[in-house]
Amino acid sequence: MKLSPTQRAYIAGFLDGDGSVYVRAKPNDSYRYGYQIAPSIVLFQSSKSKEALKRLHAMLQLGYIRERNDGILELIINKVAEIQEFIVIAKPFSLFKKKQLALMEKIIEAKKKIKNECDFQAMLKLVDIYRVLNYSKKRKIRP
Amino acid sequence: MKLSPTQRAYIAGFLDGDGSVYVRAKPNDSYRYGYQIAPSIVLFQSSKSKEALKRLHAMLQLGYIRERNDGILELIINKVAEIQEFIVIAKPFSLFKKKQLALMEKIIEAKKKIKNECDFQAMLKLVDIYRVLNYSKKRKIRP
Repeated sequence: MKLSPTQRAYIAGFLDGDGSVYVRAKPNDSYRYGYQIAPSIVLFQSSKSKEALKRLHAMLQLGYIRERNDGILELIINKVAEIQEFIVIAKPFSLFKKKQLALMEKIIEAKKKIKNECDFQAMLKLVDIYRVLNYSKKRKIRP
Repeated sequence: MKLSPTQRAYIAGFLDGDGSVYVRAKPNDSYRYGYQIAPSIVLFQSSKSKEALKRLHAMLQLGYIRERNDGILELIINKVAEIQEFIVIAKPFSLFKKKQLALMEKIIEAKKKIKNECDFQAMLKLVDIYRVLNYSKKRKIRP
């Protein structure tokens, strides 16, 4: 572990405050079972905080920064090996998103072991749990 | 300090991800210089995360939780002594809001020393700096 406990706790706090943990099942016929399974962990900030987000990115050394058309910056982690590394870093310290991180671990494991359509459907059931965990009425406009 | 370094770093991360640090100067004739000076530190979450926010509040032991009409929960710290305690806790670990926290410290000190209209105007100038520090185009709707 290249990060100190306080760095790991900081990252978990940042994720809990403003991060997103989810897996999307995107219909796509070029995949064997008709879906692309796309896990991702995203940290958000306004474009105002680009320098600070770059420092966070340099500390974390995972994912990449993308600027959306609406000016929101996203630090996106969507490679499986990097997601697994992020989970090891942040899960022990997270108060708000431990379940989402644990579910993502479980889905990644299940995906690796898929042998048939039935295994795939079982994994899709796990993906569906995010709808319950992440549903939120949160909408806000910052000053 | 009743909090561990990892707890302090977590709180700083949470603030950086989704918190707000500002001082409002509200016009109010019942105050000597025509304004009420209201500093506040607010941490936001969706109502979905009430239990986790309560745990964060229990850890922090500062401020109070308020539920807005739109379902957003706010952990609000607006007593000067509590704000000062929060600054001691979080400032060393904050990557994104160190300037806002340092400015708040400065305003609180300046406010204590006000002797006349001129001192008051100088403090108002400090409050104005938040407009620059906090201005953000960030608007978002969560999934």
